[in-house]
Amino acid sequence: MRIDLNADLGESFGNWSLGDDTALLSIVTSANVACGFHAGDPTVLRRACAQAAERGVAIGAQVGYRDLAGFGRRFIDMAPAELTDDVLYQIGALEAMAHAAGERVRYVKPHGALYNAIVHHEDQAAAVAEAVALYDPGLPVLGLPGSVWLRRAEQAGLGTVPEAFADRAYTPEGTLVPRREPGAVLHDADEIARRCLAVVRGEPVAAIDGTPVRIGAESLCVHGDSPGAVEIARTLARRLRAAGVDTAPFTGARR
Amino acid sequence: MRIDLNADLGESFGNWSLGDDTALLSIVTSANVACGFHAGDPTVLRRACAQAAERGVAIGAQVGYRDLAGFGRRFIDMAPAELTDDVLYQIGALEAMAHAAGERVRYVKPHGALYNAIVHHEDQAAAVAEAVALYDPGLPVLGLPGSVWLRRAEQAGLGTVPEAFADRAYTPEGTLVPRREPGAVLHDADEIARRCLAVVRGEPVAAIDGTPVRIGAESLCVHGDSPGAVEIARTLARRLRAAGVDTAPFTGARR
Amino acid sequence: MRIDLNADLGESFGNWSLGDDTALLSIVTSANVACGFHAGDPTVLRRACAQAAERGVAIGAQVGYRDLAGFGRRFIDMAPAELTDDVLYQIGALEAMAHAAGERVRYVKPHGALYNAIVHHEDQAAAVAEAVALYDPGLPVLGLPGSVWLRRAEQAGLGTVPEAFADRAYTPEGTLVPRREPGAVLHDADEIARRCLAVVRGEPVAAIDGTPVRIGAESLCVHGDSPGAVEIARTLARRLRAAGVDTAPFTGARR
Amino acid sequence: MRIDLNADLGESFGNWSLGDDTALLSIVTSANVACGFHAGDPTVLRRACAQAAERGVAIGAQVGYRDLAGFGRRFIDMAPAELTDDVLYQIGALEAMAHAAGERVRYVKPHGALYNAIVHHEDQAAAVAEAVALYDPGLPVLGLPGSVWLRRAEQAGLGTVPEAFADRAYTPEGTLVPRREPGAVLHDADEIARRCLAVVRGEPVAAIDGTPVRIGAESLCVHGDSPGAVEIARTLARRLRAAGVDTAPFTGARR
Repeated sequence: MRIDLNADLGESFGNWSLGDDTALLSIVTSANVACGFHAGDPTVLRRACAQAAERGVAIGAQVGYRDLAGFGRRFIDMAPAELTDDVLYQIGALEAMAHAAGERVRYVKPHGALYNAIVHHEDQAAAVAEAVALYDPGLPVLGLPGSVWLRRAEQAGLGTVPEAFADRAYTPEGTLVPRREPGAVLHDADEIARRCLAVVRGEPVAAIDGTPVRIGAESLCVHGDSPGAVEIARTLARRLRAAGVDTAPFTGARR
Repeated sequence: MRIDLNADLGESFGNWSLGDDTALLSIVTSANVACGFHAGDPTVLRRACAQAAERGVAIGAQVGYRDLAGFGRRFIDMAPAELTDDVLYQIGALEAMAHAAGERVRYVKPHGALYNAIVHHEDQAAAVAEAVALYDPGLPVLGLPGSVWLRRAEQAGLGTVPEAFADRAYTPEGTLVPRREPGAVLHDADEIARRCLAVVRGEPVAAIDGTPVRIGAESLCVHGDSPGAVEIARTLARRLRAAGVDTAPFTGARR
Repeated sequence: MRIDLNADLGESFGNWSLGDDTALLSIVTSANVACGFHAGDPTVLRRACAQAAERGVAIGAQVGYRDLAGFGRRFIDMAPAELTDDVLYQIGALEAMAHAAGERVRYVKPHGALYNAIVHHEDQAAAVAEAVALYDPGLPVLGLPGSVWLRRAEQAGLGTVPEAFADRAYTPEGTLVPRREPGAVLHDADEIARRCLAVVRGEPVAAIDGTPVRIGAESLCVHGDSPGAVEIARTLARRLRAAGVDTAPFTGARR
Repeated sequence: MRIDLNADLGESFGNWSLGDDTALLSIVTSANVACGFHAGDPTVLRRACAQAAERGVAIGAQVGYRDLAGFGRRFIDMAPAELTDDVLYQIGALEAMAHAAGERVRYVKPHGALYNAIVHHEDQAAAVAEAVALYDPGLPVLGLPGSVWLRRAEQAGLGTVPEAFADRAYTPEGTLVPRREPGAVLHDADEIARRCLAVVRGEPVAAIDGTPVRIGAESLCVHGDSPGAVEIARTLARRLRAAGVDTAPFTGARR
């Protein structure tokens, strides 16, 4: 049994630090590195790529809206053709950083408001998929199981990797409980590890109302934006390995 | 006999248009495409690359300081290591646009204040050369003959392509007469064509004080920032061909 | 009889020019000067304010989303509190430019996607109104008659100035025909002048289907983004004056 | 006896936090609030102004180069006229934030590379002074004693406030020891407090080579960019008060 652990990295900018990339890279197997549009200046990105390469962590392009002030967390009603070009630009820019570290971009995962938008937004989902396909049809993409995004990516001929969120509650339908609702975010490291183990084994987990629900995922998303989050991720990785689960970059993107 | 003609392109941004890329691409053989830091949004860059690819015009990365408000025309006293990363990022971003057009970045030419700074600035010149070498040591660079930039690029193992400015006067030492001095910029299409022909043939041209001076160049830089400039470039290209000079992307970068 | 003519100005940025501010300032009586977030760098804004002040044209703050790449024409799903702060910042910045010209900001008119959003978007409309009220409750605002924006501004205690679009067709309900529909934009200077004269006199104009519709407006918005548009605006101003209508900055903001 | 304590605030941006504004505002009497060009988004600035106003801390405009990626710490060779406009814009923007808090901007202090440049750079110093004088000739400015900046500000009719750096070593000539030299930055809270007390009393302090040197200052600059720095500032404020020195915003700007 094996599973991929992914987290966002390279989100510092200039004089502003964010997250503990070094700590995260000792835990995860895939690094969603920002590409400069919502976060990450070239020096930050290059360092993140170099550190990921050194540790054998797969580098992914975490593409986002062009919105530093909003950290890519605000939906922007962009023309799809312009979104395609913005995403293409970001992947290429990060590729140069990965290349300088002797590596390459291994996958694409949209960030923040873009991630959320393309769960439903057909045109923006298709626009992002088109960018990835234009860049390299062999590049798989990460996303929410059942999302328009993964469907559109598949239609564009891309490999798709469904992911589960380690620290989030799910509805009985298998979608995420919105963050603003009580109980949406889990904080107990033990519970999180137990649930993730179930996901890896293909067993159901308890939805927020107790209903058993099966979450198909080939990657688990963990967070690193607080010392607590890093600790939870570390515990999760340890528990998985203790249970005989190998953590390694995903390989079998569905086609 | 053959010579390369290069010009700046892809310098529009969002709702703001600049230059006539379509006209220029019917004239030049090498397009210095902006990379988004001093000008050029991803959609503009992709269109410029697509049009260049269609016409067989070589795509070059016109890298600059991160300064949209100043159009890259203001010297920024950056740390060399950060400049390396900024240049690397820009080349990679443009490469994705060239790639989407079935082409690739063929050379690098710094823009504006960066171009001027690295004529003399050892550390910034070395920083830009390092970025190119990290990206692809096979990528040649354009620059001013005798500049620190070309020397540093050579030391970094890069091929170098010295260029002459079609519409600029030279000192007896073979350097450019500063723009602010009288007579620095030439406006007469006939005179410009005559001088460029001399450069191509390896014959001396008259420096601003009349002294004959030899300008070694494998590319001629033309401008497209006014209808007059485009017309001068068109006349130049016609005269060169009429005189039996083939215009084609440079091939023999010095090593 | 008198009417105000307003137009967008100060939308150049750095090396990129847009519109003919000088021509427009000889025509309009109110200048919607950009504030740097969607367009306009400080030098452009200061020059626009200085020229407006010289000619007795009222200076208004044309506030927009922070989106240079999109020219403020893309809806951004911002938190209302942040929108309030962004608008406050922009008004203050422009005020300094008006002040340096011996003038002050006389009104506020949202730009582009923000203008369109707050026709319906309650929270963003309230957020912009709050910013204006915080800055100066005596500052009137321009907007679409019947919009949520004008209603919210009124509730915030602001004076409101409904405007009509000189070159746009209206529905029988008195709303604008969307730009993408045929006939939405008028190009005939005579027709435009005739319709505007009717608006000024309080007479009905023909909606797109011929139905007579009354457009209550205290200001007429004209455009200057093409030489044709400037010519139409010039003709309109001349016709109004020939018909005995005085063009002057609005005074009677409704309260 | 009384002295002003000033520190940089409002330097967070979007999702990126920097410094502990709340802690600093319990210590200092003048807050150099960023203005959005090198740091500080409108929401950050408004909060900083509101908190300063609540505590009776004077609000100053900490103006800088337009360079978020470089945090205003890189010299930009701007045209003086454009620098004037950039500074004017920033002061106006911050004024709106101060105004929303029932306060106003009380002084101007340049930031980072601009601060350093105008110690010597005549044209940029004059350009910043011109901006302040255009905005409000009654607005005093903070700066390094003996700098071109203070001289130019004085010539422009502005009140000037020389400041000393609490945690920096001085040369025998009374200038700052460059940061890169050993011993340039002091870390001992006791030593810092003792030296500052000497400055306040008009007594000499030991230069880096032991020579007694007199630092004339009406304000002491403290730092808050690390928990250690905040602690040093807190100790300094306590010691000053214990020694009978009142800490209060400066009043007597020299003219």
